[in-house]
Amino acid sequence: MKKSRDTPGSPMIDARHIGPPTRRAFLVGAASALGAAAAHALLAPWPGRAADVPVDPTRVPGAPATDYGRRSTFEHARRLATPQRSRTPLQALHGIVTPSALHFERHHNGVPFIDPARHRLLIHGLVTRPLILTMDELKQFPSTSRLAFVECAGNGGREWQGPAGVTVQDTHGLTSVSEWTGVPLATVLREAGLRPEASWMLAEGSDAAAMTRSLPLARMDTALLCYAQNGEPLRPEQGYPLRLLVPGWEGNTCIKWLRRLKLVSAPRMTREETAKYTDLMPDGAARQFTFEMDAKSVITAPSGGQRVRKPGYVEIRGLAWSGRGRVGQVDVSVDGGRSWRVAQLQTPVLPACHTRFRLDWRWDGREAVLQSRCTDETGYRQPARRELVALRGVNSYYHYNAIQSWKIDERGDVHNVQV
Amino acid sequence: MKKSRDTPGSPMIDARHIGPPTRRAFLVGAASALGAAAAHALLAPWPGRAADVPVDPTRVPGAPATDYGRRSTFEHARRLATPQRSRTPLQALHGIVTPSALHFERHHNGVPFIDPARHRLLIHGLVTRPLILTMDELKQFPSTSRLAFVECAGNGGREWQGPAGVTVQDTHGLTSVSEWTGVPLATVLREAGLRPEASWMLAEGSDAAAMTRSLPLARMDTALLCYAQNGEPLRPEQGYPLRLLVPGWEGNTCIKWLRRLKLVSAPRMTREETAKYTDLMPDGAARQFTFEMDAKSVITAPSGGQRVRKPGYVEIRGLAWSGRGRVGQVDVSVDGGRSWRVAQLQTPVLPACHTRFRLDWRWDGREAVLQSRCTDETGYRQPARRELVALRGVNSYYHYNAIQSWKIDERGDVHNVQV
Repeated sequence: MKKSRDTPGSPMIDARHIGPPTRRAFLVGAASALGAAAAHALLAPWPGRAADVPVDPTRVPGAPATDYGRRSTFEHARRLATPQRSRTPLQALHGIVTPSALHFERHHNGVPFIDPARHRLLIHGLVTRPLILTMDELKQFPSTSRLAFVECAGNGGREWQGPAGVTVQDTHGLTSVSEWTGVPLATVLREAGLRPEASWMLAEGSDAAAMTRSLPLARMDTALLCYAQNGEPLRPEQGYPLRLLVPGWEGNTCIKWLRRLKLVSAPRMTREETAKYTDLMPDGAARQFTFEMDAKSVITAPSGGQRVRKPGYVEIRGLAWSGRGRVGQVDVSVDGGRSWRVAQLQTPVLPACHTRFRLDWRWDGREAVLQSRCTDETGYRQPARRELVALRGVNSYYHYNAIQSWKIDERGDVHNVQV
Repeated sequence: MKKSRDTPGSPMIDARHIGPPTRRAFLVGAASALGAAAAHALLAPWPGRAADVPVDPTRVPGAPATDYGRRSTFEHARRLATPQRSRTPLQALHGIVTPSALHFERHHNGVPFIDPARHRLLIHGLVTRPLILTMDELKQFPSTSRLAFVECAGNGGREWQGPAGVTVQDTHGLTSVSEWTGVPLATVLREAGLRPEASWMLAEGSDAAAMTRSLPLARMDTALLCYAQNGEPLRPEQGYPLRLLVPGWEGNTCIKWLRRLKLVSAPRMTREETAKYTDLMPDGAARQFTFEMDAKSVITAPSGGQRVRKPGYVEIRGLAWSGRGRVGQVDVSVDGGRSWRVAQLQTPVLPACHTRFRLDWRWDGREAVLQSRCTDETGYRQPARRELVALRGVNSYYHYNAIQSWKIDERGDVHNVQV
């Protein structure tokens, strides 16, 4: 198996599926052909071409400071992108913060191109003072920041039908964490003045899908109108210049490119809460408005597509989270769920945020099935696959949160299995 | 005054000093001249050129997902770079996480270019088992992550002589926060086996300055050998592939591009702890080994170079931190220190980490002098300038942590003053 330098996680583990993007290789090639100094400066790897690494870096003056940094020439972890989604390479990340450049994407008709100076938020419907706010006006309001995950309701959806993904990026890559900054929704709604009959809110994006969801006002107490992500303004694919964040709720409720909030007295049964984002049960009924993301966890190292290079010490590393609050405990099994040990949680453990867990393990070189199980602070425990399927059948696409099993074979290769 | 779109902080505030980098303008111009499709793809603003913003973004399919994201065409906040340092634009940032691309830099002979596969960490001297570790071997050890600031000892150094910086980027931009991941130093030292007479450690970088500091082992309990920053591998300018982090200590002790730890019985009096990074007192003596960064705070909005556009509500926003633990309390004055109010602290409040504070204020349109004052959990309170100068004189360059004053004049322009 090819050894890849860009494999974080356990160093006893090799990774497939993270390679230099072919588009980049193409462009660098094309730029070399151009041979122009200006293009070279921007296309140049940082701080140099791999072939030009000095034998002794202490003998060569280094590169000067720059105004906006880039990652090393030697690092290639990337989102796996199709036109309407891209997945975070969880197997390549450490801690809990997702770099904004690697935050997963899901859009329903592409990333719109919006001038923040022309963007407006309309608040109307059952309010006493309809408002049209510029971005500057929104940023005048008292602000707050918090770390929170955003997870697509469809994260792991292909696993309902059996083991589908090879890597944890495939199976769980539609969740990411940022420090989000914005204005509490409640503050802006107070400014608009809610009428007594207002009980739901229609939130609409200004993308070409005009993505729209109905949201119950009674449960919007932690919702934020966000304009910043990890310190900087939102990235375009994350809703620039304005998105809704409903911490712990399925990602599609966190309307991106937010342009309109209409206060209403009942849900409006939009496409995204009828044809999509409902869960078909075995009896033919559909669960609707399944907003909170249930407790979930996954081992990111060793994980699918990696290899444990030799028997001996391995730090098992993973992520756990719950849309209903804090992670209470994470248990890890190395025998397919027969026995469990309690993992160590990285502090601070924050509500509606990924929590990094770690557990010391000694691999004896024999086949092993690794699992993790999250129990959140409400006492809810992440189900085994058979428990989830017994309850919900396999007709759903959304809200798959079963325990993930990774089988390590005797060669050390790690495979996605369902036990 | 020019109105700038890329001004976060309070929207009633304009910002100077954040403009598109001229280098970028040059390159985009040059690339247009090249006219090559490949160069265009990489040089192209994301998700388009400002001039091409659609009138109604809902009528135009958006851009597809990408494998590694970029910020919007409309965002230009940047580090202010000279060859050996660059400053974080604190006035443009939200929350506490600094995007890695905007983390300040300080290097003593440039950013070395290092192949992580060839990089080694040597641990020798007063140990029973000298070690040479590859990056892969280091990543095998149990890991941990934490949010922490790194601050240059010289942050604000020019303010000793009087108000020097125009913006908060000038006065305080040599501090930034990341989530750092690595191996506890203690774990690796245990592996090497300390001899009883080992009491200091010489840490050496593999840059062209071979940056070296002596560090007392007795106070290394929270030190980390870091290989990741905000989820990703370290950025080159932050020590890729390996740096030391001593949370709360002056940045130069957090040796970047770390290649050697020599265990010794006394400090070695390197250049960076004798000629540099000592504090000259009024009596001619020099304070040496002043490792911890004292408690400090600064208002980032409204701050120098910004303008409060009109009287009325303003959210005062800022950052506070202490190398000695958590921030205990931040007080804010709007009358040059005559009266103080307690600011709200963003949670979680973490040790050796920036803490965002906020306070509601109503500007009456008259001259005002804004100040913030941090008290840390040890009870230490950030000094007024006169208190600091009475104690230390003005011969120092390092460890300036006096209360910062921003004067708002009757036009709303904000100036750096010392009162």
